[in-house]
Amino acid sequence: MAADIRRLKEKLAIIEDLRGASSVLSWDQETYLPPDGIEARASQLATLERVIHERFTSDEIGELIEEAEAEIQAEVQAEVQAEVRADGPAEAGLEADAGLIRVVRREYDRSTSLPVEHVVRFAETTARAMPAWNRARSESDFQLFRPHLEAIVDLCREKAEAIGYTNEPYDALLDEFEPGMTTADVEREFLDLRSRLVPIVDAIAEKEAPSAEVLHQTFDEVKQWDFGLDVIRDFGFDFDRGRQDHSAHPFTIHFASTDVRITTRVDKLFFSPGFFGTLHAAGHGMYEQGVAGELARTPLAHGSSLGMHESQSRLWENQVGRSRQFWTRYYPDLQALFPAELADVDGESFYRAVNRVQPSLIRVEADEVTYNLHVMLRFELERALITGDLLVKDLPSAWNEKMEAYLGLRPGNDAEGVLQDIHWSMGALGYFPTYSLGTLMSSQIFDTAQKELPDLSEEIGRGHFNHLLGWLQENIYRHGRIYTSQDLLERVTGSKLDSSHWLAYIRSKFGGIYGDLP
Amino acid sequence: MAADIRRLKEKLAIIEDLRGASSVLSWDQETYLPPDGIEARASQLATLERVIHERFTSDEIGELIEEAEAEIQAEVQAEVQAEVRADGPAEAGLEADAGLIRVVRREYDRSTSLPVEHVVRFAETTARAMPAWNRARSESDFQLFRPHLEAIVDLCREKAEAIGYTNEPYDALLDEFEPGMTTADVEREFLDLRSRLVPIVDAIAEKEAPSAEVLHQTFDEVKQWDFGLDVIRDFGFDFDRGRQDHSAHPFTIHFASTDVRITTRVDKLFFSPGFFGTLHAAGHGMYEQGVAGELARTPLAHGSSLGMHESQSRLWENQVGRSRQFWTRYYPDLQALFPAELADVDGESFYRAVNRVQPSLIRVEADEVTYNLHVMLRFELERALITGDLLVKDLPSAWNEKMEAYLGLRPGNDAEGVLQDIHWSMGALGYFPTYSLGTLMSSQIFDTAQKELPDLSEEIGRGHFNHLLGWLQENIYRHGRIYTSQDLLERVTGSKLDSSHWLAYIRSKFGGIYGDLP
Repeated sequence: MAADIRRLKEKLAIIEDLRGASSVLSWDQETYLPPDGIEARASQLATLERVIHERFTSDEIGELIEEAEAEIQAEVQAEVQAEVRADGPAEAGLEADAGLIRVVRREYDRSTSLPVEHVVRFAETTARAMPAWNRARSESDFQLFRPHLEAIVDLCREKAEAIGYTNEPYDALLDEFEPGMTTADVEREFLDLRSRLVPIVDAIAEKEAPSAEVLHQTFDEVKQWDFGLDVIRDFGFDFDRGRQDHSAHPFTIHFASTDVRITTRVDKLFFSPGFFGTLHAAGHGMYEQGVAGELARTPLAHGSSLGMHESQSRLWENQVGRSRQFWTRYYPDLQALFPAELADVDGESFYRAVNRVQPSLIRVEADEVTYNLHVMLRFELERALITGDLLVKDLPSAWNEKMEAYLGLRPGNDAEGVLQDIHWSMGALGYFPTYSLGTLMSSQIFDTAQKELPDLSEEIGRGHFNHLLGWLQENIYRHGRIYTSQDLLERVTGSKLDSSHWLAYIRSKFGGIYGDLP
Repeated sequence: MAADIRRLKEKLAIIEDLRGASSVLSWDQETYLPPDGIEARASQLATLERVIHERFTSDEIGELIEEAEAEIQAEVQAEVQAEVRADGPAEAGLEADAGLIRVVRREYDRSTSLPVEHVVRFAETTARAMPAWNRARSESDFQLFRPHLEAIVDLCREKAEAIGYTNEPYDALLDEFEPGMTTADVEREFLDLRSRLVPIVDAIAEKEAPSAEVLHQTFDEVKQWDFGLDVIRDFGFDFDRGRQDHSAHPFTIHFASTDVRITTRVDKLFFSPGFFGTLHAAGHGMYEQGVAGELARTPLAHGSSLGMHESQSRLWENQVGRSRQFWTRYYPDLQALFPAELADVDGESFYRAVNRVQPSLIRVEADEVTYNLHVMLRFELERALITGDLLVKDLPSAWNEKMEAYLGLRPGNDAEGVLQDIHWSMGALGYFPTYSLGTLMSSQIFDTAQKELPDLSEEIGRGHFNHLLGWLQENIYRHGRIYTSQDLLERVTGSKLDSSHWLAYIRSKFGGIYGDLP
């Protein structure tokens, strides 16, 4: 390895350690922080952001990136001329170095365009906004959160202007979470998807829905928790390299591929959120645990993009965890755990219950079919906040109107409406679209896995997931961020993002439950 | 406030934030870290130490300290000449600034004498040594820990040489934990104490000991945990500014006075370690919670010294929590919680059980009378490791021989001998003496409190602790590190450290249980 790349990597390892530390503080903030510790934590996180930003945007790193770019270009050229390719895993070779430089150049350019004062204000503002959101949500009072969100929207607009964009400021925000995607791409994808999805939703609405009453009973929380852990242990989530804790809003965070934390919220009166939340988080978690050790302490030691990440949480939650085969294997276990509650319900009914399609108010509890409508709504609202077409003070009513238009429902209060998601309080505007992009990718990837692993369905029916996990590790997880999500998707599936996979999956699966669908 | 002091404080606030962050990572390491996350955590902690050390030892901070020293001196002189003293709390005035400069100058001189490579190696070595110690202890195999401890002893000797000392290298280590104390001071204090303590221990050994069988029963762990929490809530430990978690080795750590974490280990078969461990930790915790808000994000926002800290954990654990009055109030509660286990035992017998004197192997479970002998043993051994008179490989046998000489007991294995304490794995050589210094201070302080709060005993008997806590906050806690522990002790009690208070307390209390003592 050339000297400049090595020196650059040494500098970046320090940055990665500090980012890991910052993530530990964020994790603790959402899991164990005592209420009066919020202010001090805000200072600590802001300081870490400041130190990271100062170190990362230093001239020295800028020069090392430039020199490394030249070195990489020379090496690629030499390889092409010599018509040889180094053997060994991509994670230790030239491809990884090229990926590293791509990722670092992009982050460097983004970061150097932001003054450190902006970064510190952003960290402080969001550290205070998150607990305010929590309180606002529990009291169902948007006004408690409103000044925080106003500050955040201002900061996001400031950020977009500083970073720059081609068409509209939202591009700059989206690009943070899904590098390479533009607002126009998302809009086109969503318009197309909606036009094909709405007839399916309408058709299902005409049919008789299976009952989901079985899910709404009193389920002992500890038993729920343990059942979820048992299943993700079978999936292959490695508890020597991770753990699950409780938090108000479930999330996954990692400090290294050897230290991945997932969180879940268990509802004593409703089985689905806790259990499927655990599977979802485990999907994210196994992605991070699967990143090659060679990439440790580099900026490549993370999933490729949020969309690709979501494809994995959705794949394990839905393609696996809501499949008929899965419940063939696990329903008897669940029945044994809750004999009184599940005595009168057979496996097929339970499978139908967890797949009941029903427009609802809460995104994280939405069924697979209507889920994307929740995301589209958020995308449109946050885009309008950034363009300035929508003011924060008008957000609750805009939310409620769109909910009525898209899902035929009106939230009874802000807690089940505009306050339900944590993302805006974290300053993560531009994040939501990745949920739908990931959902679409998940089907495309799972279709490929099924082709290459012909026994996959049958294996899921036996609770054997090692081939699937191995295939995903080999094709996706181990690469970390070496490839962009678009390139990675094409490498794995042979084609660009194509929503017809997901639509076919929905038609086939829900056709099996509801009868033929358009 | 003068410009240089203000600029210095801004720089120090960043350092304090980073230290807080580092403490969060250490807390997590001992409470929730998954096993394979150890290496990444070691990197993160080492990087934080490196960044803190680089920033703190910068020339800029050195110059600001010099300028601030001059400013303070001028201000003090002006005050003396004007014969006025500013009103208002010490925490916001000249005295606090003088304390700040004293603390920072000392730390700066210590830190600049250590090369950053040493600091990083120290952090990495101890981050790996702690899990190795944990494993060694659970397998009772000193050899698993030996190479780590050898590395640590070498690093400590290197550190002592770099920092410098007057008489012997151990001085430099002790001074880290108890600024102003020398090895010779400790030796003199301990020799004197031992000569007066051994006759008491011997006299007690001749008498009939009360039974402690009642403490060795099966006590539901959750109930034990909750009882401890109820008591420290009564003490005044503020759960809005702190929390308690489980860990293998109990400790207290703070990230701010508004975020104080204590940990406890509950033993299902033995009541004392969990309960008294909780009181002990709460004593440390309330000290940190009581530091004045004006000192936040400065190096003064911590207890004065480890000895002074220990005086507070011991005061709440022993002077309060093992007193007859305390159990008059709380024994009925405990009996109601464990009706079957405690049916046949009256309050006086329980009080005698928790105060049974019995030479034992484990320091943290030792009674008040023999406790200091455990500390003296460790002081002598670690001092010999640092002078080179004792090699790590000979430590287990040296330990066992001294245990036999001091307490008449020989450990059956390393887990209940040389491996029982976490401190050496943390690189904290020089720490142990502060346990005895704190024990001696606790009696001296409590005697003063009793004089100034004539109803104190009676209040403890009613479970009212707000006067005691308020008195301690006012006289000790709120000052943080403004005063050295020696100065603070003299301010509070009117005299220098004087072990006769503790000896009188022991004679009186245990004379009441065992009959007249010499």
